[in-house]
Amino acid sequence: MAVHMWHYDAMKFLKPKKKRIYLDYAAATPIRQAVIDLMKPFLRDQFANASAIHQEGVKARLAIDAAREKVARLLKARPEHVYFTGSGTESNNLAILGVIEAKRVAGVAYADMEVLSTRIEHPSVTQTLLYIEGLGVQVRYAAVSEEGLIQAESLQQLLSEKTVLVTFAYVNSEIGTVQEVGKLTRVVRAFEKKHTCRIYVHADAAQAPLWLSCELDRLMVDMLSLDAGKCYGPKGVGVLILRHGVVLSPVLHGGPQEGGLRPATENVAGIVGAAEALRIAQAHFDGRVQKVTHLRNFMIGALLEIEGVVLNGSQAHRVANNVNISVPGIDSEFAVVVLDEKGIACSTKSACSGAAGGGSSVVMEISNDASRATSSIRFSLGEETTHTELKRVVATLQEHVEKTRGFGV
Amino acid sequence: MAVHMWHYDAMKFLKPKKKRIYLDYAAATPIRQAVIDLMKPFLRDQFANASAIHQEGVKARLAIDAAREKVARLLKARPEHVYFTGSGTESNNLAILGVIEAKRVAGVAYADMEVLSTRIEHPSVTQTLLYIEGLGVQVRYAAVSEEGLIQAESLQQLLSEKTVLVTFAYVNSEIGTVQEVGKLTRVVRAFEKKHTCRIYVHADAAQAPLWLSCELDRLMVDMLSLDAGKCYGPKGVGVLILRHGVVLSPVLHGGPQEGGLRPATENVAGIVGAAEALRIAQAHFDGRVQKVTHLRNFMIGALLEIEGVVLNGSQAHRVANNVNISVPGIDSEFAVVVLDEKGIACSTKSACSGAAGGGSSVVMEISNDASRATSSIRFSLGEETTHTELKRVVATLQEHVEKTRGFGV
Repeated sequence: MAVHMWHYDAMKFLKPKKKRIYLDYAAATPIRQAVIDLMKPFLRDQFANASAIHQEGVKARLAIDAAREKVARLLKARPEHVYFTGSGTESNNLAILGVIEAKRVAGVAYADMEVLSTRIEHPSVTQTLLYIEGLGVQVRYAAVSEEGLIQAESLQQLLSEKTVLVTFAYVNSEIGTVQEVGKLTRVVRAFEKKHTCRIYVHADAAQAPLWLSCELDRLMVDMLSLDAGKCYGPKGVGVLILRHGVVLSPVLHGGPQEGGLRPATENVAGIVGAAEALRIAQAHFDGRVQKVTHLRNFMIGALLEIEGVVLNGSQAHRVANNVNISVPGIDSEFAVVVLDEKGIACSTKSACSGAAGGGSSVVMEISNDASRATSSIRFSLGEETTHTELKRVVATLQEHVEKTRGFGV
Repeated sequence: MAVHMWHYDAMKFLKPKKKRIYLDYAAATPIRQAVIDLMKPFLRDQFANASAIHQEGVKARLAIDAAREKVARLLKARPEHVYFTGSGTESNNLAILGVIEAKRVAGVAYADMEVLSTRIEHPSVTQTLLYIEGLGVQVRYAAVSEEGLIQAESLQQLLSEKTVLVTFAYVNSEIGTVQEVGKLTRVVRAFEKKHTCRIYVHADAAQAPLWLSCELDRLMVDMLSLDAGKCYGPKGVGVLILRHGVVLSPVLHGGPQEGGLRPATENVAGIVGAAEALRIAQAHFDGRVQKVTHLRNFMIGALLEIEGVVLNGSQAHRVANNVNISVPGIDSEFAVVVLDEKGIACSTKSACSGAAGGGSSVVMEISNDASRATSSIRFSLGEETTHTELKRVVATLQEHVEKTRGFGV
């Protein structure tokens, strides 16, 4: 028996199971231990309703207040302008629908409202825009370059005195392009000044906080969406930050929580965890960006050496952790499944785009090339990603591409 | 030193700090250890996005599928009709707004829709009804008895061929009245049959699962809202269960999660925890109900011996854990603060009604008596509640009432 067990162990030692390589950090991140540690008391003993007036409730309320102040300090906003929601998706919905509804309540007809965006946004924005189009709101889409950059001139041309909102992602969730937010916002501000009107600018920054400053003043936007589950915090908690003076109506109706803008018994543990995840994300990003950019550049370089590989998105305006390539002729869904079998987790597009085929609408939009759109693969890196892992990923993909081509597909 | 420490310990022993008494279980419950244990893996290692196609994503998806099946089996619904949301509030919004929006999309004008409810609902229902009234939908309110029971005859009279929805709470969150759901639903079903129309019945069952069966068929409702944070599960997770054939439109727009009805990256840990909390709640409620009903009856009896105390809500149709009394002449906010100082956590009304004064609108509605509405106190019991605790609470309240009266207030 003992000999047998020794034999078994030796076998295991000789052929160790390879650790899986996770390169889908844009879809979901782990939660930091420090974040879990702060959440724990509110998952156990301190369970009270933060709207209750007794001591237990007050303690929960104070924890939420502290979380709100933490996020406000971080992003240079006022605490009363930090709203906790149930997801990044909900934050985007609240920003867009909240403006439209507030205008409606103020007496503006849907037909007299215009919203500007792009055709490369996340489904939580594109689907919300489709919905308001159904109500009669005019939605116009600014041109984006082949690199995924929104063209300021196009935006400028689309602005009108009916424009109530401009909405786009700070960092594109699929191709990683970082928009020149300041440049775009200045175009809007100049138009506002000239025509004495007020146009809100909303940026979905869900993919940003680990890699870029999200300070409200620096970005000059009026609304900023964040998602704790994308920056080493808990899932199920989003944040919407408003600039002073922004007027929104709620999307969900109920109690007076979150200033009446987002009712429901507060998810105290989630809120406390979200604030800490955002703090750590924004507090230490220089070293993280440097390390991960280096890895990303290595990976892009190595992938581009595989015949036929093209990079999607900008090289210069690219978030530190995004690698998105196309290999025309190679089906991306199949490639991702093969990589998965070989121990590598990556994706074809945004997880929120669904598992249905048809390629990436973002890559299609920037390239106008169906063979690129159906062969795009997104690798998104994390703090834990290593050089050795990336070398194995590149080799595995190369092997798959060569094998597929060998079959004459 | 040692002697000194012994002295200190002895002092502690001689005058132990009294444990606080928590009687606000209707506002928030602790999370069961068994629930936390099931959630833990998804708060740590298994963090993937459940919409991702790689192994990690598939594992998360399977966990959500299993949670959905668990809830479906429990409540005798189909898994594909179980929707996880971000709160009980969101579930109520989705039920009400989802019907209205689906009708609008189908071409029905707001002015041609009627919704029936009552004036004793939770803010997540009353505020949503106010919102749809603003859109032009006619909202009518059925009469409720002094005990808080919806009058079937009144409901019957209000039904019309324009009625699209009837919505009410299974268990009233403030006064604990349990509605005769079957009786009310039969009224609606009879009307449907006579007029060949379809009217959805929605019940907010947030306060029910620990004490009453929530099986969909037994209740004969079309939609049922639940809240994990009210039955020893995590905060930030609601459930909406639909009967086959119910057509809703989403309130939030985005990815295809939850059948497209509730987009956002799934809160896997929360969903897994919610399902287990609901399972335990529904699986073992007989013993729990017996024990807590006994405690509740003792408490009501003891409180009614205090001069001037009246019971709010029904004695016969009352949820096991609710005690709601008024002491006309005694300010309820002040009483709750005094009780809090003496180590007792209870509330004046629903936490979602906000901290603002003005008394309980629910008690005002059933009693039409401002002195009762401004002096109502809700004690909601939990599994952990003991006879000793309740005796101390009654004595403390009695002392406060006598003291206040002694001051001639």
